[in-house]
This record gives sequence, C-alpha cells and structure tokens, in this order.
Amino acid sequence: MTLGSFTGVLVPALTPFKADLSPDRERFLAHLKWLLRQGADGLAIFGTTSEANSMSVEEKIELLDYVIAGGIPPARLMPGTGCCALTDSVRLTRHAAQQKCGGVLMLPPFFYKGVSDAGLFANFSEVIQRVGDSALKVYLYHIPPQTSTPITLNLIGMLLKAYRGTVIGLKDSSGDWNNTAAVLKEFPEFDVFPGSELFLLQGMRAGGQGCITATGNVNPAGIRKVFEQWQTPQADALQAGIDRVRKAIQAYPMVPALKRIIAHFNHDAEWAQVRPPLVRLPEEKWTSLLPELAEAGLGGAAAA
Amino acid sequence: MTLGSFTGVLVPALTPFKADLSPDRERFLAHLKWLLRQGADGLAIFGTTSEANSMSVEEKIELLDYVIAGGIPPARLMPGTGCCALTDSVRLTRHAAQQKCGGVLMLPPFFYKGVSDAGLFANFSEVIQRVGDSALKVYLYHIPPQTSTPITLNLIGMLLKAYRGTVIGLKDSSGDWNNTAAVLKEFPEFDVFPGSELFLLQGMRAGGQGCITATGNVNPAGIRKVFEQWQTPQADALQAGIDRVRKAIQAYPMVPALKRIIAHFNHDAEWAQVRPPLVRLPEEKWTSLLPELAEAGLGGAAAA
Repeated sequence: MTLGSFTGVLVPALTPFKADLSPDRERFLAHLKWLLRQGADGLAIFGTTSEANSMSVEEKIELLDYVIAGGIPPARLMPGTGCCALTDSVRLTRHAAQQKCGGVLMLPPFFYKGVSDAGLFANFSEVIQRVGDSALKVYLYHIPPQTSTPITLNLIGMLLKAYRGTVIGLKDSSGDWNNTAAVLKEFPEFDVFPGSELFLLQGMRAGGQGCITATGNVNPAGIRKVFEQWQTPQADALQAGIDRVRKAIQAYPMVPALKRIIAHFNHDAEWAQVRPPLVRLPEEKWTSLLPELAEAGLGGAAAA
Repeated sequence: MTLGSFTGVLVPALTPFKADLSPDRERFLAHLKWLLRQGADGLAIFGTTSEANSMSVEEKIELLDYVIAGGIPPARLMPGTGCCALTDSVRLTRHAAQQKCGGVLMLPPFFYKGVSDAGLFANFSEVIQRVGDSALKVYLYHIPPQTSTPITLNLIGMLLKAYRGTVIGLKDSSGDWNNTAAVLKEFPEFDVFPGSELFLLQGMRAGGQGCITATGNVNPAGIRKVFEQWQTPQADALQAGIDRVRKAIQAYPMVPALKRIIAHFNHDAEWAQVRPPLVRLPEEKWTSLLPELAEAGLGGAAAA
C-alpha cells in the first residue's frame, strides 16, 4: 500500500553549478532526464545532496519551473521545501503545490536546537494551513546528523492525527535501522523511505516503499534492480552489489565525490563544481576512488 | 583599540511578531529606540535571539529599512547577514552595506556539518567579494551550540590574511571562556565580543570590546554599567549583580522568556508572541521566573 504517488527509487538529484557558482539549469535538466531514463521512480530535487540549502528560494523556484517546462513530469518530482524560515517554507511549498508536484520533502527548521515537538508541529501546521491545498502531499525529512532536530515518533503521531492524507510519509536519513523499523511498526500506513540504499531490501521486507538515496545519482539502474527483484531469490546478491558501490563512495565527501564521478563518466569537468561551503573532491582522493568504483562494479553507466 | 565603530554593550534585539506571525515593525522600532535610550552601544538585529533564521531575507530587508527610516542611526546597527545560502548572504550583506550599517554579523552556512575551513573561507570570501564595498565591516559569529560549525582560530587567521580591515571581529557565543581567551591572545588586534555578559568583565580585562548579549534586551542599563565601570573597584560587585539576572533568565528558554518579560513590564501581552519552531513560555514557568527576577534585582526597567 502506498498513500502517495511515490514508490521505488527516488534520487535527491545533484544540482550542477557553473564556474560562477550559479545553478546550471541545462545540465540539471539533462541529469534529471537521464535519471528517469535509468529507471528512477522519482526525483527528490532540492535535498541535502542537491546542496539545496546553499540556494535561495528564488533559485529553487526558477530551477523547478525550468525543469517542468523542459518536460519533467511534475508528478515525478518531490522537491525539498522545508526551510529555516517559516515564510520561506510556505512560499516554496505553495509553489511546488501549484506546479502539481507529486509531493514535497520537508526538513524541520534546523537552526534552533532542542526545540519541542509542539514547536515543530506548529511549524509544519502553519505551512500546511497557509498553503491550503488539499492535493498537497508532505513527506517529513528526518536527518538528525545535519539538523540535530529529529522527527520523533511522537511528532509523526501528532501530525498524522491532524493532517492525515496530507502528511503521508518520511525519508529516514538517520542511518539508524532501529529508527526506520520503529516508524514502520508504529505507523504501518505511513510511506517510509530509508535515506540510503543500504536499507533498501531490509526496508522493503519490513513494509517500506523503497529508498531516497544520494548514490542514486550515479547508480540508479543498479539500485532500481534491487527494488524490482526484492521478492526474488537474487535479491540478497543484488543488494550486496549495490552495497559495495555505496560503501566505496561514502568513504569520501558525498556530494563532491558524486559530482566528480559524473564529471568523469560524462567527460565534463564542469560537473565537479560545488557551491561553498562544500569544496571539490581533491584530485588525490579521486585517484583512489576511481579504482575502488571499478572494483565495486560501477562502470560507465553513470553518464548523464 | 577598536577596528570598527562598535565597542561596549550590543543587544541582539528581539523581533516582535503579531498574532498572525508577521514581524511587528512598529513594536520593533519602539524596542530599538528604548534600547538606545537605555545605553545600548549597538543593535545586533537579526541574531539568534531575534529569531532571524525564522524570517525570510525579504522580511529582514523590510525591517532594516523601516527602522532606519524611523530614525535608528545605521552606524549603530550590526545586522546578522550570514545565511545558509550563499546568494541570500550576498543579498542581505549588500543591502546592509548599502544602508551604511556599522557592521554585519555573519554566521557560517550552518546546514552542512564537518565542512572544512577552506569551504568556510570560500563562503565568506565570495560574500565579501560579491558585495565589493570597501566600507564593509564583518564580524564573524561563532556559535557552535547552534551551528556545529565553528569559526576556528585557523579560519580567523585565513580571513585576516586575505581581508584585513574588512573582517574585523568576532562574536563568541561558544560559552567557552577558553576559546574567547585564545582568540584574544592569538589576534590581539581583533574586536572580540563574548556572547554573554557573564564574560563581560573578564573579557574587558583580557582585551575584549564588550559583549553582545541576549539579556541586554531586558537589562541593558545594568549591563552597560559594568562596561562603564569595569576599571573601578565596584566592577566585580556590579558584574555579580548582572550575573544573577542572567542566571535567573537562562534557566528558561531564552527567547520566549525574554519576550514574556517585556510583555509583563510593558503590559503588552502581544510581545510574548514567538514564531515557530519556538513556543511561548508556559505560564507556569513564568510564575516561577517572575519572583526569581525580582530576587535577582531586575525590576520595572525592562519596559520598551
């Protein structure tokens, strides 16, 4: 059972930047189209991997409009729209809803620490009420390593009670399987996506909907195959294969490494650009990553 | 010696909100005027205490323009202009510079964790270069409890080497005197403001410039007196007095408590409003805080 339009492998798409650090919308659109051709079920643009918090609301709105105008079906888009500022979250969420995006992925306001579930509830509640669109589908974004502000079981319960049918799922980037399992157990009707393919098979077996994973930017077809075949005898072997690729990459700074991989396979050096405060992958790290990728089985497939 | 126009007691001014959660610019202007009348040397608007990260760039620009039009001298303003997104930081910093603010207080981009000094340097460097105003004065904002992204001694050294005369100081909200002392020792020419009046006297004796402190919103005159008399025999007794007020307040959630105090002394219940994810101070906490304030010696002075 799924409550929204999303199930399977969603990719928090990387945002390419030009040498002047402005978003490169042409390369972005080409990358999204490649991901869909490779079998990505959805595009979670403006996520952590997208360097979304390094972009203004205006830049995100312009990119969103551009890729939709360029042919990306809005129903396949799950843009990140949760900002620190309530008014920014409202503006971006409203725009995504007006554009008929399949859903939105909402970070909690992440500057303050130790805020209460009541305060987080008030934040999400204000956004939902101000947007006021019955078609809005909200996925909560639990990523305590970055936010230190968890989406607790208690908070999920409060939101489901008040906004059932609108708040319909969770991306769990805690990296903690016990948390994912607890959410699946407590809220079996909730659409839960682990934030890494390391938990894809385990998640499917426990009632999850797939995964939303950074490395989907370079290994979408491999990860999709595990989703397709999770009920077959090959599932564990396929999972072990994508685990090897993931583990090779995640030993490096994730976003710079993914961009450097695409730059390599696309013969397009400009793809390696990041926006501060991130820095490009140093070449000596690339020199060690490249053979590790080959050994893990990731070849020329990663080409947008 | 001070490199900028600021020395003494700066107040990260609270931002009042209306019942509909929009910024209340009239109450904000009245509060800033009261703080100046009480002896505040500067107004560090759009800080943590100001709930600045709960407001959009547009809202901050509108408030800044309004208070300047309303008579607040720009030279007394040190707005917070460091955002997560590079383009937001550039826009807000440029606007503050165009408005001839005495300085700006810059948070590091605070979403990513474990970013390198090189990446943080690139962020500040891009902002300074894009604003391109030789009159710009930047104070760095070190507040690891909120950001988990420290302004290290190494980073300060890198910035001073590249932007001496532009990067001129630091607000140290680490709450760690050893860090403040290390910055003062390593960079004696740097304008250092501890982020709490608990370190005011200690800071002045070690070469600091004063303090930038949340509780300045309700006890500006008391704190200013320590600054005025820090070289007199009464200094330690005066410091002990403001410590008592600070410690009474900081046992409660800081921003909601400060707003509730002003609401009380101003007979203006609307002042207690906060923007999510913060929540108002529960009345039972206020019932315990009020007599503690009286015991600490804070009376009716806190009235805007």
